[in-house]
Amino acid sequence: MIRVNTKTHPYNVLFGHSFIREAFTSLQDVTRTADRIFVLTDENVWAAQGERFTAAFPLAFDVFVLPGGEACKSFEQYNACQTFLLEQRATRKSLIIAFGGGAVGDLSGFVAATYMRGIPFIQVPTTILAHDSAVGGKTAINHPLGKNMIGAFYQPQAVVYDIAFLETLPEQEIRSGMTEVIKHALISDEAWLRQLLDRSIYDYSAEELSHHLQRGTQVKADIVAEDETEQSVRKYLNLGHTYGHAIEAASGYGNLSHGESVMIGLVYCLLLSERYGEITRDDTLAVYNYAVSQRYPFDAVAKFDFDTLLGYMQKDKKAEYGELQFVLLRKIGEPFVQKMDVAECRAIDEALRQLISEGSQ
Amino acid sequence: MIRVNTKTHPYNVLFGHSFIREAFTSLQDVTRTADRIFVLTDENVWAAQGERFTAAFPLAFDVFVLPGGEACKSFEQYNACQTFLLEQRATRKSLIIAFGGGAVGDLSGFVAATYMRGIPFIQVPTTILAHDSAVGGKTAINHPLGKNMIGAFYQPQAVVYDIAFLETLPEQEIRSGMTEVIKHALISDEAWLRQLLDRSIYDYSAEELSHHLQRGTQVKADIVAEDETEQSVRKYLNLGHTYGHAIEAASGYGNLSHGESVMIGLVYCLLLSERYGEITRDDTLAVYNYAVSQRYPFDAVAKFDFDTLLGYMQKDKKAEYGELQFVLLRKIGEPFVQKMDVAECRAIDEALRQLISEGSQ
Repeated sequence: MIRVNTKTHPYNVLFGHSFIREAFTSLQDVTRTADRIFVLTDENVWAAQGERFTAAFPLAFDVFVLPGGEACKSFEQYNACQTFLLEQRATRKSLIIAFGGGAVGDLSGFVAATYMRGIPFIQVPTTILAHDSAVGGKTAINHPLGKNMIGAFYQPQAVVYDIAFLETLPEQEIRSGMTEVIKHALISDEAWLRQLLDRSIYDYSAEELSHHLQRGTQVKADIVAEDETEQSVRKYLNLGHTYGHAIEAASGYGNLSHGESVMIGLVYCLLLSERYGEITRDDTLAVYNYAVSQRYPFDAVAKFDFDTLLGYMQKDKKAEYGELQFVLLRKIGEPFVQKMDVAECRAIDEALRQLISEGSQ
Repeated sequence: MIRVNTKTHPYNVLFGHSFIREAFTSLQDVTRTADRIFVLTDENVWAAQGERFTAAFPLAFDVFVLPGGEACKSFEQYNACQTFLLEQRATRKSLIIAFGGGAVGDLSGFVAATYMRGIPFIQVPTTILAHDSAVGGKTAINHPLGKNMIGAFYQPQAVVYDIAFLETLPEQEIRSGMTEVIKHALISDEAWLRQLLDRSIYDYSAEELSHHLQRGTQVKADIVAEDETEQSVRKYLNLGHTYGHAIEAASGYGNLSHGESVMIGLVYCLLLSERYGEITRDDTLAVYNYAVSQRYPFDAVAKFDFDTLLGYMQKDKKAEYGELQFVLLRKIGEPFVQKMDVAECRAIDEALRQLISEGSQ
């Protein structure tokens, strides 16, 4: 169990295996005051895990099934959830359970944040990626002009992380989620990073995976406790995300996964970090070669020119005052924030393309 | 100047006459960090006051003009504001100015609360009603199934209340706003209430009006400081709103004004309070007769039967666990919250209709 101490309220992230019943029984303080419980999920998760969830969940609930993937984070689906809750006569005392991956969690959290100006919710993530997104209270929906542009900081009452749901994840989802684990290692601990780069992401036992996820969650919890609304250190969690989001957006959401795109962004940031700190080309290559060996799709970069990516980067939420802002590493485990000009971004983009065209080394 | 001490941050409500330039010059701490300033307003306010605002406002800004009245609080207009901000490349450091009445303030506040997970905003109210709605951080949009159903608690950085904007208000707007002043007196101070009931709402000088508005704002600020998110005493501010919202909703938003509807709700609550405390029929009649003399439209009640109103009351955000909840008065200045059953609500509804059919007494 990991405690997340935020200003609004502290809450626990519970880890376990096939323990939904046990977890929710332990959360009676939250569930007891709920007049109704509404599970928001998506069609893929519900088809694969709905029966297991329903059999294990110890309380009565109603369910609203959203379209799968990033599609649920649209304005239309947000509105549909609000309509559902109003039709169901959900009150300020009703409890929302977000059951799914990062997209379901982001949307459900924003629905909870804004239904009648805020009702309680619990995250029940079903992906590796969600060890990152379910903790910390960032909720959002997408706008045609940018990802996660509309949202709120709104903390859950608890996060229930049942590793059993991860056992049937497709390869792309494993890649997507493990990027955030590697990111958490990059910004916190070189020894842990070396450990991760030593193993295939596809070979972890449930126990090993749980260990790394708890470690990643702890990194995130410590940062969020210090800076809930991203005024300072929380920015470190965006390592790889500026370039990554641009790749993700340019490729059209759902083609490249979030984490696949961010992995490309991590390598970009390592190349950039070589100019500003003690990061060496060997550090960069260690991550790049590993990522290639794990089938991260670096060939996607060639599909877009730099100016296209730049357009997306300039619309990034981190681009304050119209300037580009990147998280870089002084060395592994020591992130910092750096403003960049376009010329330097372009040069590093070229260096990345050259690295990719040379293949893994 | 009134200080509002909320948990998220304290802020000031500035009062003055034709003092926009002076007020914003004094708010340099807020405006200095803004990379851009966006004024959200509505077509009526902008047509009437846009020139005066533009001439007085000391900084560069861009403006987005919304449809007038409650229409701006739709999902579509909310989305349109977000699109505008994204197209304008507003960042997390951009500042929103809500320039208008309660509807503009509610919508703009919710836009500010959720654009990139929250950016700063300042309320510049142009109505009497907004002395209530602009303070306290309740932001919201409407849903076809209920008013203010989607929103957030999100505090402004400041409220700039320029009494000069109130001088051209139409009669209905004066009625609408003065209801909240009378409500603030009802829940706080009998002597002040008597003072208010002694004067026509249409006869105040700017100075007198400013005095009463500051007094009402102080009542609200004290309550909000104690209970920002309406867990306890903030509920008192809902006096008259359960029945009032039902009348407003049933009549179709924009026909009866918010305050006109709430005035009917206040009389309803006084009738109900006669059963639970020391409120006498004389107290009720003092408010009712005054309201009739000020042309509050009590004849609207006859247009709807009780069951129609009940349907709306049961969808009210205050109806926890499906129960009806009312704010009542033990005596003038002493509010409390009471759960009610439908039979009693119906009986009081009948008493109100009888009072109205008898005319003022």
